Amino acid sequence: MNTTSVDYSLYLVTDRNLSRGRSTAMIVSEAVAGGVTCVQLREKGCSTREFIGEALALKKILCQAGIPLIINDRVDVALAMGASGVHLGQSDMPIEDARRLLPPGALIGISAESLEDAVIAEKKGADYIGISPVFATPTKTDTAPPLGLEGIRCIRKAVNIPIIGIGGINLSNGKEVISAGANGLAVVSAIVSAGDPQKAARAIKKAAFPGSL
Amino acid sequence: MNTTSVDYSLYLVTDRNLSRGRSTAMIVSEAVAGGVTCVQLREKGCSTREFIGEALALKKILCQAGIPLIINDRVDVALAMGASGVHLGQSDMPIEDARRLLPPGALIGISAESLEDAVIAEKKGADYIGISPVFATPTKTDTAPPLGLEGIRCIRKAVNIPIIGIGGINLSNGKEVISAGANGLAVVSAIVSAGDPQKAARAIKKAAFPGSL
Repeated sequence: MNTTSVDYSLYLVTDRNLSRGRSTAMIVSEAVAGGVTCVQLREKGCSTREFIGEALALKKILCQAGIPLIINDRVDVALAMGASGVHLGQSDMPIEDARRLLPPGALIGISAESLEDAVIAEKKGADYIGISPVFATPTKTDTAPPLGLEGIRCIRKAVNIPIIGIGGINLSNGKEVISAGANGLAVVSAIVSAGDPQKAARAIKKAAFPGSL
Repeated sequence: MNTTSVDYSLYLVTDRNLSRGRSTAMIVSEAVAGGVTCVQLREKGCSTREFIGEALALKKILCQAGIPLIINDRVDVALAMGASGVHLGQSDMPIEDARRLLPPGALIGISAESLEDAVIAEKKGADYIGISPVFATPTKTDTAPPLGLEGIRCIRKAVNIPIIGIGGINLSNGKEVISAGANGLAVVSAIVSAGDPQKAARAIKKAAFPGSL
């Protein structure tokens, strides 16, 4: 994958616990139809074999659409099923190890909870940074204090690689995150918990990137 | 590692929750001094980074002693820190994927809960099989019904690779597991929960392999 051409504008992060009983594959299909440009599969409770199976199911959907599939945390899962890359938190595998283990061209995204995290991630060769959390969020309870729009502006000035805001992003606040300098919006509950994930994705994208649809 | 020369006779499987507050590194050091010949690091709740750190700490101890370090489930952790191999359950990564991802000579052990599992594991190139559970065990609650000594005998006749009994093995029953045809004993609580893990390991080994010490 040509990592410079990745469109991070609307980046879906899955969460089976927030999907209201619907399959992740169904949510992802709908979200892609609604304009999602990148998908991260995040699984925290399932077995490795189930994680690989779920990733392969999403790969089938996303390959056809030319959309990258990024695996949260698990480099083994990404290697086994051939993902586009991984997304690593500060407690996941160090980026140096992941880069060494993954094939050339694999995307590596890093979660940054501070300016310092972001600067280090860029220095160590991250392909993009997830700035987390931008706003308070019910999706994750173990997060640092919200960085806010000022945090986005600050990090935007300090790093050159794409930055994606995550945490509490929805229809009403996406545009200001982009205006603050983010390249993309990572969304969890505003899409996966929506009654109509396709419609929700389309609305968020339209509101944040008025010229895109 | 020359996989034909591995000594599986007393195979320690770690469990931080059963270690009574002592560090896994301390338990492993003691157990090795007591005659453990192989160590599997099993971590189910910690972060990937912590898992790698723990594995590196054990590697330091085990390298010096020439004892293999096997990582439970996580091929990514094994790759990142250079373990001797992995141990995979029936819900972990399929062996074909693990073999492809791991370096040549890496050990792959497979948990078998039936004769059929064991035969398939050998056919797919496992280096050894963990027969589980031999007896009822308090360590894992999600196990199949105990296979018993008859199960060991049955599997011994069907496969040629090393087989290791696991589940409820302790000082009093290890010898009969070996007599039934197992090459080794995998032990969790009888060592990690023991007041003196070194003494416990030595006693189990002496009881099961009277000529070994």
